[in-house]
Amino acid sequence: MAPFLSKRDLQFQLFEVLDTAALPQRPRFAEHSREVYEDILNVAYAVAERHFANHAREADLNEPHLEGGKVNLVPGVQAAMNAFRDAGFFSAHHDEALGGLQLPWVVMQAVQAHFQAANVGTAGYAFLTIGNANLQRQFASPEQQEKYMKPLLEGRWFGTMALSEPHAGSGLADITTTATPREDGTYSVSGTKMWISAGEHELTENIVHLVLARIKGAPAGVRGISLFLVPRYRVNPDGKPGESNHVVLAGLNHKMGYRGTTNTLLNFGEGGETIGEIVGEPGRGLAQMFHMMNEARIGVGMGAVMLGYAGYLASLEYARERRQGRPASSKDPQSAPVPIIAHADVRRLLLRQKAIVEGGLSLGLYASALVDDLQTGPEEGREDTALLLDLLTPLVKSWPSKYSQEALSDAIQVMGGAGYTRDTPVEMYYRDNRLNPIHEGTEGIQGNDLLGRKLTQAGGRGLQVLLGRIEADLKAAEGLTGLDEIRTALQKAVGQCVGALQTLLPKAAELGPDLFLANANSALEMLGHTVIGWMWLRQASASARALPGARGSDADFYRGKLHAARFFATHELPRVRAHAELLASADRTTTDMQEAWF
Amino acid sequence: MAPFLSKRDLQFQLFEVLDTAALPQRPRFAEHSREVYEDILNVAYAVAERHFANHAREADLNEPHLEGGKVNLVPGVQAAMNAFRDAGFFSAHHDEALGGLQLPWVVMQAVQAHFQAANVGTAGYAFLTIGNANLQRQFASPEQQEKYMKPLLEGRWFGTMALSEPHAGSGLADITTTATPREDGTYSVSGTKMWISAGEHELTENIVHLVLARIKGAPAGVRGISLFLVPRYRVNPDGKPGESNHVVLAGLNHKMGYRGTTNTLLNFGEGGETIGEIVGEPGRGLAQMFHMMNEARIGVGMGAVMLGYAGYLASLEYARERRQGRPASSKDPQSAPVPIIAHADVRRLLLRQKAIVEGGLSLGLYASALVDDLQTGPEEGREDTALLLDLLTPLVKSWPSKYSQEALSDAIQVMGGAGYTRDTPVEMYYRDNRLNPIHEGTEGIQGNDLLGRKLTQAGGRGLQVLLGRIEADLKAAEGLTGLDEIRTALQKAVGQCVGALQTLLPKAAELGPDLFLANANSALEMLGHTVIGWMWLRQASASARALPGARGSDADFYRGKLHAARFFATHELPRVRAHAELLASADRTTTDMQEAWF
Repeated sequence: MAPFLSKRDLQFQLFEVLDTAALPQRPRFAEHSREVYEDILNVAYAVAERHFANHAREADLNEPHLEGGKVNLVPGVQAAMNAFRDAGFFSAHHDEALGGLQLPWVVMQAVQAHFQAANVGTAGYAFLTIGNANLQRQFASPEQQEKYMKPLLEGRWFGTMALSEPHAGSGLADITTTATPREDGTYSVSGTKMWISAGEHELTENIVHLVLARIKGAPAGVRGISLFLVPRYRVNPDGKPGESNHVVLAGLNHKMGYRGTTNTLLNFGEGGETIGEIVGEPGRGLAQMFHMMNEARIGVGMGAVMLGYAGYLASLEYARERRQGRPASSKDPQSAPVPIIAHADVRRLLLRQKAIVEGGLSLGLYASALVDDLQTGPEEGREDTALLLDLLTPLVKSWPSKYSQEALSDAIQVMGGAGYTRDTPVEMYYRDNRLNPIHEGTEGIQGNDLLGRKLTQAGGRGLQVLLGRIEADLKAAEGLTGLDEIRTALQKAVGQCVGALQTLLPKAAELGPDLFLANANSALEMLGHTVIGWMWLRQASASARALPGARGSDADFYRGKLHAARFFATHELPRVRAHAELLASADRTTTDMQEAWF
Repeated sequence: MAPFLSKRDLQFQLFEVLDTAALPQRPRFAEHSREVYEDILNVAYAVAERHFANHAREADLNEPHLEGGKVNLVPGVQAAMNAFRDAGFFSAHHDEALGGLQLPWVVMQAVQAHFQAANVGTAGYAFLTIGNANLQRQFASPEQQEKYMKPLLEGRWFGTMALSEPHAGSGLADITTTATPREDGTYSVSGTKMWISAGEHELTENIVHLVLARIKGAPAGVRGISLFLVPRYRVNPDGKPGESNHVVLAGLNHKMGYRGTTNTLLNFGEGGETIGEIVGEPGRGLAQMFHMMNEARIGVGMGAVMLGYAGYLASLEYARERRQGRPASSKDPQSAPVPIIAHADVRRLLLRQKAIVEGGLSLGLYASALVDDLQTGPEEGREDTALLLDLLTPLVKSWPSKYSQEALSDAIQVMGGAGYTRDTPVEMYYRDNRLNPIHEGTEGIQGNDLLGRKLTQAGGRGLQVLLGRIEADLKAAEGLTGLDEIRTALQKAVGQCVGALQTLLPKAAELGPDLFLANANSALEMLGHTVIGWMWLRQASASARALPGARGSDADFYRGKLHAARFFATHELPRVRAHAELLASADRTTTDMQEAWF
């Protein structure tokens, strides 16, 4: 079976493109070293291979289902969670005082990447738990952290995020789950939550739901929403789970992919009182959630990258082995058929996948490194870093979600009929990844976020920071060999983006918000491709520097990077222009369309 | 539940864009009329709705499986086949003498469209039978037709196409199934065939396989391949199925979609002799297959269109009903959420689907009408018609296969989490349609066919015919209201295509076949979008002419057509340029890539 991840590329991204090896110079990471990080990544690979990849297809074919009122999962999930816990990954980025390793976020993302690639369905249980704990760490009281967070860090309990309701998914402002104050300061929570991943299972002795709800009498809209800690089982004074908290499984959702993760409809306060504790101040629920949104969205983008990456590697292995047809120049029927990797169009499909998934990986790790810079980097420049991260986040989330899906389609295409069957993994990755453009904010939401908020906030400073960094990398690349196509194409794309924005942004008031945002998707496409082009410039630059001293497979690796950069320049970046022109024209086709005309 | 097909649009395409109502002027169709065609389409809708749509999801969830050595299907399949047979659809386009209605091919395609939209998996059994009979009608002897074709026309037996082998799918030149002459003039057939749809089932008393095989001692390559009629059960002198012909089911394939159609691995000559009859002359097998290829590929394209269409209609209904969020200009949390069709980005996703599926339908029916013109149109011009049909075929096959998939992704996106579940049909359509870019010739094969053969054969006459027809339609559209965007954008796209081809084609010899074809995919993309733009010009022209006299929902229909044409002009046709430029540059990125660099 093909590997699910390229160790060599991960090393390259972390230590040759990014300066992860320098992080131990920061006080928080003083006890680390490049070797420590490499050891941890090796453990991640081993655990992911042995305990996650082993049952990915089995979990896909045997969805969570009810047996005797309990959710039944394939046994591999429990074993995987135990191995993940034993490796210390639930708490690896937390303080040593909490049992963590104080791993930088970029290394933590690289660790998680292994599990996303090996088995995204099973990994879901762990990642939701990690996200839940991160949010508690930020906003919950010390008592709450002791009670609800520590068991998560120890992998003894799992966590969820319970935001959506049947009538309110993208529009969270309209949730109706209510929290009624009780005399002891806790709340009685009542309502129905939809799409709750890992909402019910028997993997752990308790489940901690983070629930958005509206305190009785709170104002309409987002300012009336608060956040609550709601355990499946109430917690006894000794910290052990006690009686039922009346969170009732009302149904399981059956999805196209991500089938290994239980997805639930939950009723809170059914057949008894559901008691919850408020996190922080009332009315801050959505703001607290959004505080974690950059990291959550980077996580979705990285998940998309890794599914695409696993598909790329599977189709690459297949293309090297499968023999079929002959080159156009050599139709001698007596000759042996060639491995299909020899065909130009198969090579195009493989190069495109490589360009997408390695470009996406570069961006996901770059953004993760920005999270570290925000938390542990030099004080100076943190404001710029924050604005850049804000600007990049919708791209990190949406670009790989969309383009990994295209890459996975290319992987299926390389493998033909075989790729379309359940005997090979790519059709599963294709089904799994189709969720990524939807959850944690749809593409429509990302486009509006980018154009309506991130490109204009702080007087457009985020874009200036981005352009400054691209400019610096372009300058640093001067004189390097083999970068002509990517440099030229990137400069052109940057010019088209800037031109479009300089035309559109001054018209914002005149157009009004609806018209201004009408083509926000083109902003996402235009800047997404340009930013990935920048990531390819950075990878190509690192490769051009390393190539003269490299030999053998190492030299091949760098040549492949340079060539994928050329591919992105010649085959992908020219798409920016059409989006830039549409955006600049403030085209009204979609807003002029009338409902009755459909 | 949403309708699976728009009757109004089908009427528009057949009778307002195409001149299907004039076909009865041709002798073969003299007994027809527009009313006859409309009645038949109404029957098709009723049968498709009652007997096909009813079990589409059930068949998806309960794949064909073995029970006691026999293939078990959900019961709806048998009922659907009976209804299809009783409606006379197996033979509807055949001569009256054969029990047919002599339906024109364009009407037959419109009939089939209903079943492709309602339940593509069940429809597969019927369509393979129809294709098999068409091939026999063309090439089999009168005795063979009496023996093997008539039971297919009557729906008593079903047919398959057994081409691929485990080691030879796209590369049919390398098949190894052998046919050894027997003393009585028949052949003993031995070998293994892969991906055989409807290869085994108990729906009918016999199955007729059309098998490609190599007569012992035949030359290597395509010229050594012959075509054989191989029944599942040998046929007794009285025409009834007799003893086993030793075609053994060796396995069922499990696919991502198209789950309702049994897909098989078949061993011929296992445990006994498999006897077949040769069709026509030895060595003509692949040529005979390819003679039917235009029609088969139009069928695949139309199937893709209809899956996309069904998804569009489902997401449109959802978008009208689902309320979520508020326009950017009106964030009052007290106001009711709006139907999501009010959001610009949802409207973009719906308009894009409309532009893709209605454009694709237009092209599929246009090409089908060309098939009729070839067979029953004026003698004069048939050569040009044949060249145009040849040129369009790779586009008719590949464009909807690719872009319906994007449309279906847009449908899922509109429906969000609901679209990702198996409670709604779009995720199934998305899985089903992903096969279409693979079977009946992959996209890579279509690209090479277009650039390497269809654009150059007969001195490029096919392209000249195409350009002439586009030019004529552009001229006829002069003075019509509401067509500015589509006319301008189409003219520009045509200019870009012509420019690219004028640059590339003269260099063919200098580049050599491998380099010349290296960017064939861009030829497919560039001409595909341009031809669909032409189809939108034709639809917009018909609508502009009809609009002044139209009222109410009819006027809305024409305004929607004009607006979708504008959308295709502003949002899709600008993509042509990047492909044209890449093609003209004879870019070597894919051919320069070395295998070791991946």
